[in-house]
Amino acid sequence: MNFASDNTAGVAPAVLDAIARANRGFALGYGGDELTRAVERRIAALFERDAAVFLVSTGTAANALALAHVVPPWGGVLCHAEAHIATDECGAPEFYGGGIKLIGLDGVGCKLSVATLSAAIDRHTGHRPHAVQAAALSLSQVTEAGTIYTVAEIEALCDVAHSRGLATHMDGARFANALVRLGVTPADMSWKAGIDILSFGATKGGALAAEAIVIFDPARADTMHERRKRGGHLVSKHRFLAAQFDAYLADDNWLAWARHANRMADRLADRLAGRGLTPVWPVDANLVFVVLPAETHARLSAAGAAYYARRSASLPGGMALAPGDVLARLVTSFATTETEVDRFTEITSG
Amino acid sequence: MNFASDNTAGVAPAVLDAIARANRGFALGYGGDELTRAVERRIAALFERDAAVFLVSTGTAANALALAHVVPPWGGVLCHAEAHIATDECGAPEFYGGGIKLIGLDGVGCKLSVATLSAAIDRHTGHRPHAVQAAALSLSQVTEAGTIYTVAEIEALCDVAHSRGLATHMDGARFANALVRLGVTPADMSWKAGIDILSFGATKGGALAAEAIVIFDPARADTMHERRKRGGHLVSKHRFLAAQFDAYLADDNWLAWARHANRMADRLADRLAGRGLTPVWPVDANLVFVVLPAETHARLSAAGAAYYARRSASLPGGMALAPGDVLARLVTSFATTETEVDRFTEITSG
Amino acid sequence: MNFASDNTAGVAPAVLDAIARANRGFALGYGGDELTRAVERRIAALFERDAAVFLVSTGTAANALALAHVVPPWGGVLCHAEAHIATDECGAPEFYGGGIKLIGLDGVGCKLSVATLSAAIDRHTGHRPHAVQAAALSLSQVTEAGTIYTVAEIEALCDVAHSRGLATHMDGARFANALVRLGVTPADMSWKAGIDILSFGATKGGALAAEAIVIFDPARADTMHERRKRGGHLVSKHRFLAAQFDAYLADDNWLAWARHANRMADRLADRLAGRGLTPVWPVDANLVFVVLPAETHARLSAAGAAYYARRSASLPGGMALAPGDVLARLVTSFATTETEVDRFTEITSG
Amino acid sequence: MNFASDNTAGVAPAVLDAIARANRGFALGYGGDELTRAVERRIAALFERDAAVFLVSTGTAANALALAHVVPPWGGVLCHAEAHIATDECGAPEFYGGGIKLIGLDGVGCKLSVATLSAAIDRHTGHRPHAVQAAALSLSQVTEAGTIYTVAEIEALCDVAHSRGLATHMDGARFANALVRLGVTPADMSWKAGIDILSFGATKGGALAAEAIVIFDPARADTMHERRKRGGHLVSKHRFLAAQFDAYLADDNWLAWARHANRMADRLADRLAGRGLTPVWPVDANLVFVVLPAETHARLSAAGAAYYARRSASLPGGMALAPGDVLARLVTSFATTETEVDRFTEITSG
Repeated sequence: MNFASDNTAGVAPAVLDAIARANRGFALGYGGDELTRAVERRIAALFERDAAVFLVSTGTAANALALAHVVPPWGGVLCHAEAHIATDECGAPEFYGGGIKLIGLDGVGCKLSVATLSAAIDRHTGHRPHAVQAAALSLSQVTEAGTIYTVAEIEALCDVAHSRGLATHMDGARFANALVRLGVTPADMSWKAGIDILSFGATKGGALAAEAIVIFDPARADTMHERRKRGGHLVSKHRFLAAQFDAYLADDNWLAWARHANRMADRLADRLAGRGLTPVWPVDANLVFVVLPAETHARLSAAGAAYYARRSASLPGGMALAPGDVLARLVTSFATTETEVDRFTEITSG
Repeated sequence: MNFASDNTAGVAPAVLDAIARANRGFALGYGGDELTRAVERRIAALFERDAAVFLVSTGTAANALALAHVVPPWGGVLCHAEAHIATDECGAPEFYGGGIKLIGLDGVGCKLSVATLSAAIDRHTGHRPHAVQAAALSLSQVTEAGTIYTVAEIEALCDVAHSRGLATHMDGARFANALVRLGVTPADMSWKAGIDILSFGATKGGALAAEAIVIFDPARADTMHERRKRGGHLVSKHRFLAAQFDAYLADDNWLAWARHANRMADRLADRLAGRGLTPVWPVDANLVFVVLPAETHARLSAAGAAYYARRSASLPGGMALAPGDVLARLVTSFATTETEVDRFTEITSG
Repeated sequence: MNFASDNTAGVAPAVLDAIARANRGFALGYGGDELTRAVERRIAALFERDAAVFLVSTGTAANALALAHVVPPWGGVLCHAEAHIATDECGAPEFYGGGIKLIGLDGVGCKLSVATLSAAIDRHTGHRPHAVQAAALSLSQVTEAGTIYTVAEIEALCDVAHSRGLATHMDGARFANALVRLGVTPADMSWKAGIDILSFGATKGGALAAEAIVIFDPARADTMHERRKRGGHLVSKHRFLAAQFDAYLADDNWLAWARHANRMADRLADRLAGRGLTPVWPVDANLVFVVLPAETHARLSAAGAAYYARRSASLPGGMALAPGDVLARLVTSFATTETEVDRFTEITSG
Repeated sequence: MNFASDNTAGVAPAVLDAIARANRGFALGYGGDELTRAVERRIAALFERDAAVFLVSTGTAANALALAHVVPPWGGVLCHAEAHIATDECGAPEFYGGGIKLIGLDGVGCKLSVATLSAAIDRHTGHRPHAVQAAALSLSQVTEAGTIYTVAEIEALCDVAHSRGLATHMDGARFANALVRLGVTPADMSWKAGIDILSFGATKGGALAAEAIVIFDPARADTMHERRKRGGHLVSKHRFLAAQFDAYLADDNWLAWARHANRMADRLADRLAGRGLTPVWPVDANLVFVVLPAETHARLSAAGAAYYARRSASLPGGMALAPGDVLARLVTSFATTETEVDRFTEITSG
C-alpha cells in the first residue's frame, strides 16, 4: 500500500529491457550516439514539430534549466504558490536563473485563473528598474493538487502571458496523466495551446531517471547545450537516458501506464467517497487528496500504508482541517494494483 | 576498436543485474531508501572512516558540487591547466561556486609539483580583498595525461595546501585505475594522504551513471544535501543509483574491472612501443597517448578506429608535434578486448 | 513641494563641507586611510560595541550584501511582502545571495507580527532538502508604510527568529527617523534588541551616497571584505565615503535632521487630518500616506506637488481605495520646509 | 611624494564645485533628473554617436557589469594575464557574469598581440559544450604596465575578435591618459577602432567616484538598467554622479588633467633615466615602472615616498629582478607636482 509518490514505484520492465538492449557495443558519449539522436527526433515528432530536445535525469533539472533559459536573472516567474518549482526544489530555479524570483499566486486546487494571472502581471510590470518584471508563466500539468488544466484554460493563460511579453513553461512531470484524461494530442496540450518550453517527464511514469526539456522553437535552443553541461546534467553514457524514453514512448506504453495510474486513482477516489471520504479536489490524474480523521490515519499507518500528509492553502472555499485531521496525498502509478487500492480503502472503514 | 573514452563502453552486466534486482516493490525516493543508506555506509567503510557520501549521476556534478562546497565564491582553485574541471566542464565549478576562479598551473604529464603549487599559493595569497585567494587544491587521480600521483606525492601536495589553509579535492573519475596500479587502499590514496573531499567515480569504471561525493569530515557535510538538491542532482528513484555502486563494489568488481582496463592499456602501450610508437607519458592507468604520423592516423580512421586527437602543453621536455602529427588519446575500459588492442596496433604498422 | 522621496533632497551642507575638508593631500585608497578607520570606530562606538563596519554607496548594496552574508544560497529571508528588499531592489538580494528566496509575509502597516513570523517559520522549516529553509528575518525600521517597530516588538520578533536559528537583519535606511521617535539609543534599537546585521543608512538622512553595513559580531565579518569588493562596492577614494558619515554623525546632526524630517511629517499629517485627510497608517517617522480623491490629486499635481502613488495590500482592516482614489506617499526630509508643507495642505482644500 | 595610485589623489576642485552646484533644490532620484540626462547625452556626443551611458561609482562595477552584459555565463573573456579585471577585482566579473571564465594571456608590457589573441581564440573555440567558449576580448587602455595600444593595434585586435564572434570591451579607467598621448578622438580610440562596450573612467582622472559604462550600440543596452540596479549600483541621489562627469568633461578639464599626469610621468621617467633608472616599459601614460635596488627602495621609503612594489611576468625579453630589487610602480595624477617628482628622483641618487 505505497501511495507516497509515483517515484516510490520502480521502473517499468520495458524500460529496464530497453536499457539492457542499449548495452551493446560502444557508443559515443554525451549525446553523440545514434539512439539519442533518434529519440530526440522521436520526441519532436510526437509533438508534431521541429522541436529541440534535451534529456536530463531529474525533473528539478528540467524545470530549473528550462526556466533559466527563458527568464533573465532579474525576471519573475508567475506560478501557483504551491507549485513544485516554488516549494520542493530547494531554490533550483533561483540558482540556475542567477537569482530569479518565483512569485507564488493563489488559486483553488493549485490552479491559476486568468484573472489572478492578469492581476499579477499588472503588479509585476513597470516600475523599472526597481521591480522584478514578470517574465514567465509556469503551469504544472498535472498540478500539485492532482487537478489539470483543460486545453482551453492553458490557451487562455498562455494568451494572457504572451500578450504581456511573458514566456510560458509547463512542468509536465505528470504530462501523460493529464494527456490521457483530456484525450488530446501532446501538441494540443503544449505548444498549440501556447507553451514555449516543456519539462516532459518520464520518471514518474515508469522510467528510471529520464526527463526531457522540449523547446518548441529550436531557434531559441542553442545555448541549452551549455546550460545543461555546466549544470552537470549532460550524462556521459547518454544512450541509456535515450533508451528509457525509447521504451517509454514505444507502443504507446506511456499512455497505457498513465491510464492505469489514473484508473487506480479513480478507483481509490470512488471507494473512498463510498466510505464518506470524498476527495478534496477533483481527481483529474493520479493523485487523490482526502481528509483523514486522526484515528483513520493512525489505523492506516499501523497497517503499513505509506503516504504523505500535506498542508495546503489551496483548499476549496472556506474548507479547513479540524484539529488532528490529516490531508493525505495518495499517489498511484503504473505499478499500483487494485488489491492495494482495495485494501487501503477497507482499512479506512475500520 | 573504440578507444574514444571509457564512457563509450556500456555498462558492466553485474551493474545492470543490480539495477534489475533493485527493481522490486516500492522504496522511498530521494535517497530515503534502505539500499541507499547501505551503500552510503559501505562506501564510508571502504574508506575506513565515518565519511558522508552523496551519490550523483555525473562526474561534472560531483566535481562542481565538491568544489563549491569547500571554496568560497571569492576563492581560487589551483589545478593543472589541463585538468578536466578547467577544460571540459563548461564552467560548472564556476557556476556552482558562484563565480570561483580556476587557476591553471603547469606541469609535465598534467601533474603538479610541490614547487609549482607553493609558488602559485604565494602568488594567490594576500593583497586582500583585491585578489582572489587560493582556497583549494584539486588533483586529478588519474590525470588527464593518464599519469598518476604516488601516495607520497599526494601527501606532499596536500601538506603544502593544508599548511596554507587550502582545502583539498581529488577528481577521482578514474580512482580505481590509479588505486590498483598503486596497490594501496582507498583510504591511503585519499584522506590518509590529505584529501578532504573526493569525487569517487564509478561511471567510467563500468556503472551506468553513478558517482559519489565523499566528504571525509562528516561534520562539514550537512549542507551538501541542499547543494545537491538545488543543483537538480538528487535523483528521485535513488535506489537505482545506489544499486550501481552496490554492484560496482561487490566482490571487488571495481578493482577487477580497473585492472583489466589498465592491462589493456599496458598491452596497447607495449605493442605500440614495439612498433616505434612509444607513449608520450608513462602509462599509469587506462590511457595511452601516442603521436601518430598523419598517414597512420588516416589508416586507423579508415579502419574504423575511434579515438580523439588532443592538444597538450604538458608534453615532456621540449617535445612538440610535427605538422600533421596527431597526439592520439587511447582509452581502454573494462570492456576493451585484447583483440581490439591487437588489431589496432597491427593497423599502425600499415 | 517635493515629497517624492527623501532622496530627492540634496545633500546637507555639513556633509558637503566634510567632503571638501577631506580633500586635502593624498590618502590611501580602498579604505586604507585614517579617516575611514576613524569613522568605522566611531560607528562602532555609537553602537557601544566592537562591531565591524563596511561603508558602501547605496542602500541596495548594503541590504543585498548583508543578507547574502547571513543566509546560505538555499535559505529564505522572511520579510514583509512590501519590504523594499522584496519589491524595489530588482532582485539584488537574490543576486548577491546566489539565488536565495525572499518570502513575503502579510501585516498591516508593513509590520510583521510574532504570530505571522512564527507561522511562517513553521511553514518554511523542515522537509529538507526539498524546501528552502527560513534562514533570516529582515525588518525595515522605518517600514515602507512609515510605521516603526517598538524596541519590544523588535525584541519579540528577534527572539522568535533566534530561537529558530534564523539570523536577523534590519534595513535601517531611515534608522535615524525611527530612533528619534523612540527616543532610545542605537544599541537599544539594534543589537540589544536582537539584530545581528544592520544596514545603517545616511543617504536619505542627508548624505550624498553613504550607507554602512554594521555586523555586530565582528568574528562573523571577515569575508565581507571580499563580498564588498567583488560586488564592485569598495570605493577607491574611500575617504569621501567616510567623510560623509563623519559629518552625518558629528554634533548629532543625524538626529537633528531626522527630528526635523519627522516634525515636518507630523505637521503634514496634522494639517491633512484637519482637512479630513487622515493618514492611513500611524505617522511614526517621515512618511505620510493619505488617500487623495482624484480631484485633489489632480489639483496637487497641477500645482507641481511631487509624490508617488502607491499600491498596498497592507491597509488597515478592510480598507480599500475607491476608484480614482490615489494612495499618496508623502516623504519629508531634512530639507523639507514648513512653507512647503503648508502650501501642500492648502492646495488639498481646493 | 605619493605615487601609490592615481586614486590616492583627492578630487579636482572643479569637480567638488560641480557637486556643490548640483546641490540646489530637489531632483528626481535614480537617474531621473535632468542633469543626468544631460550628462548621458554629453558623453554620447563626446563619442560622436547615439550611445547608451550608465553611470556607476566604481571601476570594478563598470568592468563587471560591462563584461556580464556581453558574455554569457559559459563564456570566456580573453585578457592579459595581469589585467586589472583578472587580478584586482576579487572575481567581480565572474560574480556578475554568473561564473564566466577570465582567460589570462601573455604579452610584454601587459599588451596582447594579434598572434596571441588568435591562438587563444583557436584554443577556446569548439569542443562544445564541454569547453568554455571565447566570448569577449577585454583590453586595458592604459594597460597595467602603463603602456598603451595604438589605434591601429586596437583595430587589429578588435578585427580578430569580431571576425571570430567575440565582443570587445575596453577597460578605460585611464582612458584620458591614453587619449591625450595618442592625440586622437574618443571615437577613434573606442568604437571606431572596434570597441563594443567601454568602461570610461573619471575617478582616477580627478572625479570623486564616477565611471561610465558606454554601450555603443544602444539597441543592446536596455537590460543594463536592471543589471546596474540589482548590482546595487544605481545611485539614488544620482545627480551627484552626473555632476562629477559634468565638471570632468567641461572645458576639456579631463584632457588637461590627463596631460598633466602624463607630463609628470614623463618628467619622472626622464629624471630617473638620467640617474640610471630607466623605466622597464615605455612610459605611455601616467605610470612609471622602475627597478629599484633594495638600498634605494629603503631610502625612498624612509623619506616617506609612497608607491607599491609589483610583480610581473610581463617584463621585456628575459629581464628578471635581482634578489632584493624592487619593481616600483610610480603613478602620477592631476595632483602630482614637479616638486614631488624632483624630490623623489633626487632621493634615488642617495
